[in-house]
Amino acid sequence: MEYTEAWLKYRCLSLSRQQCEEKLYNSLISYAVTSEEGLKESPCFAMLISEFEQGVESLLGSRPCRVYDGSETLRFAVDPTFGTQDAYLIDFTQKDGFGAVTAHDAKGLLYGVFRLLQLVATGQTLAGLKQTCIPSNPLRMLNHWDNMDGSIERGYSGRSFFFADDQVLVNERTRAYARLVASVGINAVVINNVNVRSAATYLITDRYFDKVRALSEIFDEYGISLYLSLNFAAPIELGGLEVSDPLDPGVINWWKEKMAEVYAAVPKLGGFLVKADSEGRPGPFTYGRDHADGANMLARAVQPYGGRIIWRCFVYNCRQDWRDTKTDRARSGYDNFMPLDGRFLDNVILQIKNGPMDFQVREPVHPLFGGLMHTNQMLEVQIAQEYTGQQKHVCYLLPMFKQILDFKTYMPGHEDATVADIISTRALKNANGGIAAVANTGNDENWTGHDLAAANLYGFGRLAFDTTVDPESVAREWAQLTFAGSTQEAIDAIVDILMRSWPAYEKYTSPLGIGWMVNPNHHYGPNVEGYEFDRWGTYHRANWRGIGVDRTTKGTGYTMQYREPNASMYENVETCPEELLLFFHFIPYDYVLKTGKTLIQHIYDTHFEGAQEAEGFLDTWKKLEGQIEDKEAYERVLERLTIQADSAVEWRDRINTYFYRRCGVSDQKGRKIYE
Amino acid sequence: MEYTEAWLKYRCLSLSRQQCEEKLYNSLISYAVTSEEGLKESPCFAMLISEFEQGVESLLGSRPCRVYDGSETLRFAVDPTFGTQDAYLIDFTQKDGFGAVTAHDAKGLLYGVFRLLQLVATGQTLAGLKQTCIPSNPLRMLNHWDNMDGSIERGYSGRSFFFADDQVLVNERTRAYARLVASVGINAVVINNVNVRSAATYLITDRYFDKVRALSEIFDEYGISLYLSLNFAAPIELGGLEVSDPLDPGVINWWKEKMAEVYAAVPKLGGFLVKADSEGRPGPFTYGRDHADGANMLARAVQPYGGRIIWRCFVYNCRQDWRDTKTDRARSGYDNFMPLDGRFLDNVILQIKNGPMDFQVREPVHPLFGGLMHTNQMLEVQIAQEYTGQQKHVCYLLPMFKQILDFKTYMPGHEDATVADIISTRALKNANGGIAAVANTGNDENWTGHDLAAANLYGFGRLAFDTTVDPESVAREWAQLTFAGSTQEAIDAIVDILMRSWPAYEKYTSPLGIGWMVNPNHHYGPNVEGYEFDRWGTYHRANWRGIGVDRTTKGTGYTMQYREPNASMYENVETCPEELLLFFHFIPYDYVLKTGKTLIQHIYDTHFEGAQEAEGFLDTWKKLEGQIEDKEAYERVLERLTIQADSAVEWRDRINTYFYRRCGVSDQKGRKIYE
Repeated sequence: MEYTEAWLKYRCLSLSRQQCEEKLYNSLISYAVTSEEGLKESPCFAMLISEFEQGVESLLGSRPCRVYDGSETLRFAVDPTFGTQDAYLIDFTQKDGFGAVTAHDAKGLLYGVFRLLQLVATGQTLAGLKQTCIPSNPLRMLNHWDNMDGSIERGYSGRSFFFADDQVLVNERTRAYARLVASVGINAVVINNVNVRSAATYLITDRYFDKVRALSEIFDEYGISLYLSLNFAAPIELGGLEVSDPLDPGVINWWKEKMAEVYAAVPKLGGFLVKADSEGRPGPFTYGRDHADGANMLARAVQPYGGRIIWRCFVYNCRQDWRDTKTDRARSGYDNFMPLDGRFLDNVILQIKNGPMDFQVREPVHPLFGGLMHTNQMLEVQIAQEYTGQQKHVCYLLPMFKQILDFKTYMPGHEDATVADIISTRALKNANGGIAAVANTGNDENWTGHDLAAANLYGFGRLAFDTTVDPESVAREWAQLTFAGSTQEAIDAIVDILMRSWPAYEKYTSPLGIGWMVNPNHHYGPNVEGYEFDRWGTYHRANWRGIGVDRTTKGTGYTMQYREPNASMYENVETCPEELLLFFHFIPYDYVLKTGKTLIQHIYDTHFEGAQEAEGFLDTWKKLEGQIEDKEAYERVLERLTIQADSAVEWRDRINTYFYRRCGVSDQKGRKIYE
Repeated sequence: MEYTEAWLKYRCLSLSRQQCEEKLYNSLISYAVTSEEGLKESPCFAMLISEFEQGVESLLGSRPCRVYDGSETLRFAVDPTFGTQDAYLIDFTQKDGFGAVTAHDAKGLLYGVFRLLQLVATGQTLAGLKQTCIPSNPLRMLNHWDNMDGSIERGYSGRSFFFADDQVLVNERTRAYARLVASVGINAVVINNVNVRSAATYLITDRYFDKVRALSEIFDEYGISLYLSLNFAAPIELGGLEVSDPLDPGVINWWKEKMAEVYAAVPKLGGFLVKADSEGRPGPFTYGRDHADGANMLARAVQPYGGRIIWRCFVYNCRQDWRDTKTDRARSGYDNFMPLDGRFLDNVILQIKNGPMDFQVREPVHPLFGGLMHTNQMLEVQIAQEYTGQQKHVCYLLPMFKQILDFKTYMPGHEDATVADIISTRALKNANGGIAAVANTGNDENWTGHDLAAANLYGFGRLAFDTTVDPESVAREWAQLTFAGSTQEAIDAIVDILMRSWPAYEKYTSPLGIGWMVNPNHHYGPNVEGYEFDRWGTYHRANWRGIGVDRTTKGTGYTMQYREPNASMYENVETCPEELLLFFHFIPYDYVLKTGKTLIQHIYDTHFEGAQEAEGFLDTWKKLEGQIEDKEAYERVLERLTIQADSAVEWRDRINTYFYRRCGVSDQKGRKIYE
């Protein structure tokens, strides 16, 4: 299977000598490594040197020379006193006019090299450049939901490149993948689905040790720790024990011995991700234990090897009855985990989804952020576009992620702390923290199905490394790298489409934070009542008067899971952000929004607008014919934008008709709403 | 796999000599066959003799003696001048006080023997009995939708007993099945799914000839003709031809040679069932041909061997857009086939579903009945309870079938002719006709999943043979045979449950003929908008004012496919039968029905009543504990009635809530409707 180099093309810039000199690119041609001690032992050292040399040769046409006589014009150095782990500084402001990449450690140097190449590939001048990059998050992780049969749960980019036919794949693409994600700062990867079933349970047995170790070693060259998802019932399924009770001495001992065996075979393993008591997966609840019991038991077993246990908080009643209006799935994460705050060991990290439901196009921030004050926390986002168009629709998610990271939780004593401050460990001085994304990759030629979806992979890495980046700048950077050789008009158009894509998707799908309204199971396409009477706790409660879930103190009381003033902000319909209005309140169709429009007119307007914007993306793209250097990529995107435009019309019509049929109010602008 | 004898238990009656004499059962003990010539050659002769002898021995405790000396008290005779094919007469009114079974042919004798045993098993007196049974329908057929991998499309009784792992099964159960269905007069069986895919395409090749012939020979002993479903694209898939165009000489010749080969190998084959141009199956439309071209081409190929082509009329656009209110799936059968009336060959029979949609709990009669006047026709019903509770709910369908058969179509010149008159060939003197049911059997121990569902299998056979039977009498007969040895109270209760089951199911599911409102794909359980925006043409168009499809001349014009006065009856809301009101008209919720109730109150009332009745079935059954002779059957039914009662509540609540949310009208009786 062929595959592209995505944003690592390093297309030749074809610059004149003068241009090279103006941008100080000539300084890249001779380099020295000034603190080679220790560095040489690092598995990524050789790799970063060759990446640098090949990258520069590819971009500028000359291969850099490594010199040892003090004649270098670029210096690579490691300085353990600089910044923190993985930090680097790119500095072209030194008096002698030449450059230096100084890093805290070898991995920092690796990131510095990739960054330097990105800067050159996007044509930025090095003259006067000084970039200090201290990573925002200790853990910058991808969660792959790949199954060992080669399928990918919520995968929209082909089959797995980690597994096929219950075998672990280790090949050239493994390396290409590691290089790709390391280039944007990813330092941890979970390769198997959080739903650990059948063969995947055996990843921690000698059936797979050789291949898993081989994978972990390739990853290590790129500064990436390999993690595995774990089956909490492994003591039963593998060990033949009667139970997997986390307080049972036999179980404790089984895990202790199992981890000794695993780490002996795969010493570089970062740790484990666990989905327990969630959507039918086994967990401590079976034995009347809580999640701290479960997580800590595993944490003790991996502690001798420096292993981490990443424990998901996606625990809710997935057998709800729609007639039950007291139970609120949104409350469940907080209700289950808040009482455990302070009970988790230092090598446990709770992985919390960005919102309380499940990766909808718009959700409030999960109330565990700001709730928990004595627990390691990671933010989980999803760049696999499960609910945001499944990589058939373009939906650039960095603006959403940025809003989440910038949300102030008002923790007592940390009133200014944002989600970014919490997960980074800055605010609470936690032992561990970070950010994970459910990955959007597969063995499709272009890695992500939709070529434009790669912006989410690139962008997630950049944002995880530096939560202060500007989504539009990242989009531009990615477009320049990926579509190198295309016209400026094309790059501008791509950035414009990306930046307008999430708002457009939100407009033509479910309104004002209510979410869902998708087809059950596969989650693609509109189905307003698809989940309305199902067991998943995802209801919109639309009737002849209005729509929305009352999550105030008069309803489910979910608003009170937030700190003040957030709790009051959401509680009161006047102060509740309108983009989340239906998430928190039941609102009549004739309610007047701040725009002066009624709710029903807002629904009609946004749906007509959203579909029009999707049509606009397609029109824009058609005008770019001949302006995109990679013609196959042009055709692929054209096909997907066509699908999106059609699907957006279907969304528009089904949503509009649904609400029209509910309330009988006509569109003020007289547009076609089917009866 | 164990299996029951269903209604063929022949449980010992334990009668006294005096009781036997009173009922003339003693006459069964010595018999003669008075016209053995010709009979002996019939493959079913030996079988019917042993069935008679074993049945009587089982029921009465003594094995009948065959005598040759004129001392017989029962005479079996064949008289080709009596009645028509398969007809028989049971006569115990002869002056000498003894009995006779006289039949048109050996098969008639077979049916007479089974009937005689049924009469005895249900304890009816033979004294003075004279039953003339001339079959209403030439073809009395079962359509099995069994796939060769062993699954059954819309099967609710376990796996197939005809196929497993792409092999044809011929074993003891084959014979038990043939005996079971022959005992109620079935004379034709299609063993494979109408959707002919993969291995099933090869049933007409030497890969399967041996087993298919073996099957056909067993069937033949029971008077049953084996039919196969055919893949219209076989010339491409098997023959390697480029097309399967019915007017292409190569295709015509391929079929001609194929049928010569098939009939040489399986001479007793009755013919073929074809689903063409339907739900994605190949057909003549691909080549710009019509269904007469397709059916006649095949008919010519099988004509030399006496074969028949049964051609399904279930042809509609299954890629409809819900926004398109002009296309009406209900119209499609008539629109496609009416123009072809008179063009089909004599050995073609059109198989027409009972209603224009698809086996809903209530539909009007298909307008092709009464439309077509120069075409052989068969009625297709479904005893597999796809849309009527999937054999988890009890739903005795004979009362529905009876209504359909008794429907007057007002054909010109045949104003009194009912559907029964048409399919029997009586009205139009067609060359062929009959009735087919999609079968409800599988390899479950009790044949039909729900023990009470066997009443539909038994009843269908009885009704197919004699369309004048009374559904309640048939239900009682079946209950007495199946639950022999149970109390009279139990038999009465079973008959009562059966007779109330279809109305109850109708009450708690979709109202007044609108249909659907089921979960997509599997079709079990409520989902009011499950199909509302899908591609299948099955819409209810509910909005804030009302619900229903306008199929009058102001709407889709479907009403005009009926003859007058039916057309006007349906056209006018005042004369339209209320049980079909929403099928034909869009009706506001506040419309007042003939009961004086508004539509919305009618919906609430019927749903509360229906769920209560389902609960009542369960209560009744619980009271029968210890009164049902077969304890395992008692437990099985108990389990299913419990499921039904729960499901009926779910139906009630979802439907009521749906409509309450639509219109905001409260229940006048103040019962609980969830918001």
